[in-house]
Amino acid sequence: MAFPVFLYHMKRTEIATLGEFGLIDHLTKDIKTKQETTVKGVGDDAAIVDNAGKRTLITTDLLLEGIHFDLIYTPLKHLGYKAAVVNFSDIYAMNGKPQQITISLGIAKRMSVEDLEEFYSGVKTACEIYGVDIIGGDTTSSLTGFTISITCIGTADDDKIVYRYGAKDTDLIFVSGDLGASYMGLQLLEREKSVFASNPDKGFQPDFGGREYILERQLKPEARKDIVELLAENGIVPTSMIDISDGLSSDLLHICKQSNVGCQLFEERIPIDYQTAAMAETFNMNVTTAALNGGEDYELLFTVPLTLHEKMKDITGIHLVGHITKPENGCYMITRDGVEIELKAQGWNPIAEK
Amino acid sequence: MAFPVFLYHMKRTEIATLGEFGLIDHLTKDIKTKQETTVKGVGDDAAIVDNAGKRTLITTDLLLEGIHFDLIYTPLKHLGYKAAVVNFSDIYAMNGKPQQITISLGIAKRMSVEDLEEFYSGVKTACEIYGVDIIGGDTTSSLTGFTISITCIGTADDDKIVYRYGAKDTDLIFVSGDLGASYMGLQLLEREKSVFASNPDKGFQPDFGGREYILERQLKPEARKDIVELLAENGIVPTSMIDISDGLSSDLLHICKQSNVGCQLFEERIPIDYQTAAMAETFNMNVTTAALNGGEDYELLFTVPLTLHEKMKDITGIHLVGHITKPENGCYMITRDGVEIELKAQGWNPIAEK
Repeated sequence: MAFPVFLYHMKRTEIATLGEFGLIDHLTKDIKTKQETTVKGVGDDAAIVDNAGKRTLITTDLLLEGIHFDLIYTPLKHLGYKAAVVNFSDIYAMNGKPQQITISLGIAKRMSVEDLEEFYSGVKTACEIYGVDIIGGDTTSSLTGFTISITCIGTADDDKIVYRYGAKDTDLIFVSGDLGASYMGLQLLEREKSVFASNPDKGFQPDFGGREYILERQLKPEARKDIVELLAENGIVPTSMIDISDGLSSDLLHICKQSNVGCQLFEERIPIDYQTAAMAETFNMNVTTAALNGGEDYELLFTVPLTLHEKMKDITGIHLVGHITKPENGCYMITRDGVEIELKAQGWNPIAEK
Repeated sequence: MAFPVFLYHMKRTEIATLGEFGLIDHLTKDIKTKQETTVKGVGDDAAIVDNAGKRTLITTDLLLEGIHFDLIYTPLKHLGYKAAVVNFSDIYAMNGKPQQITISLGIAKRMSVEDLEEFYSGVKTACEIYGVDIIGGDTTSSLTGFTISITCIGTADDDKIVYRYGAKDTDLIFVSGDLGASYMGLQLLEREKSVFASNPDKGFQPDFGGREYILERQLKPEARKDIVELLAENGIVPTSMIDISDGLSSDLLHICKQSNVGCQLFEERIPIDYQTAAMAETFNMNVTTAALNGGEDYELLFTVPLTLHEKMKDITGIHLVGHITKPENGCYMITRDGVEIELKAQGWNPIAEK
């Protein structure tokens, strides 16, 4: 054994050259599942395990301080709530029901028992509201930041599971709620943080009046349990579905790539809340860009056959934003001016160089 | 919303005052599970979810650089292997079979694609050997150290699951393999690291000759799949079982506390490899202390009824180390000199102040 055994590998390919999805593809491309019970491995919102016909869904998220959250403006209770909810969202995106979670924490030295109680109370509140059990985890100290890893287990009937790969030519594309709000909330928090940082001693308190919606979308998002239930009540099983965590553009491209189809998205149909639009104007940012690339909306993006067009009107809280096309037509957004712009996966990239 | 919302909580209880197990108890004591499918939540080696009679076991581990591993002397391939195996070990400790894992990584900036390939190749090798599928995960960048979170899913028949709480008075206590080797391997690596640190330019290479076994126990441990299979082949279902991750003392106390029993452990029966003993002598350390409190052995500690005494002789690779007593007798080790020493949970504590 040479010593030290690890400092830098001889050949060095920078991770940024591959990007998050490229890296995952690269590391997982040769993985072959062998267990009979493994129905679906890497590559969708959740993995699927068979249990006597009933399916178990598993999803997991790792949240690191400084990358995914900033404790200067994130109440720990909200952070706990969000950490749980984003995992529930992945299970709903498979048309499943979240049932259990495990929580692993790396605890930063500056944190007290009360801080962890705050965090846990947020997790527990989320679990209470969504009907999910906390069943385990791991707790350790962290030499650096606060580290959160949550795994969620859900169930679904085999014939009701919705993958990313089922979209077909002429399918309609729907999105729930509105988009871009979480991103604009983050921009607002970041601005106030920098104002605070330059005047820490002057008792500075930011003015968040009238901005509650976009702040809540960023700090305490919800998963769209209601939409999944509405679809079920109306007997609708989407042909494909994903939750919008990276941004509409990036997540719609996931569906198109895995379904081997193209798409047409209409800019004027992308649902935007007025607070989102107002904040974008204040910041002199393009609100469509925020909706396309902002991410962290945790809305559901899904496709249904064209024949269901009339029936979809019974589902409240969703918006028709476009349709699926043949793969050779590519993936485009039609702007308000009628210009076709190719969609790019410019979503929030946690692998990007900081 | 006050700003900043979080710096320090008003009331501040230091986490060290509770310790790891105290903190987990404190945060989870009011958790009540509600899902019909939740069979067992927090408090054993793995959680249990029901799926049409068959049980799904779930366990998760969070490993942080600087706390759980040191990349100066840990080859990434071994680290990947170990990160997977320690989770398999938790499933075996329930008398289950690991089937799937998810891997979440927080990637330190200095790491290259090749480094991650090394890590993944270790995980894949472990999965190959133990017959486990990689089914998902999450990948993000880390501003600080390398972060690894692995969740393992396993299966077991309901009537074969072994908990920590089933030990009964007069049961025999067995342990597989030998103990303390991993801890002595760690001491050796730490010593060589400090020698290296004081002579980095002199081409220093440590002499690990004859120490391969203790190094392997630390860097590339195995889970005791073979023992679980042997027990099954012989029709033996232990009354309680745990894997030794914190140290024999701490883990035996877990069984005694949860089973509401006492125990007598015989020092002379604790299995120690000669390399472990030799290393302890070199370091002028008590080898029994290493076995009791060192941890990271990933051997199985289990109890069986006294009536199985003869039958247990058919199981190779295990050692009778003591027996269970009534709770009022307490938990003691009988030394080679016949002195009774009360067992204390002095195992490796990842929550301790560094």
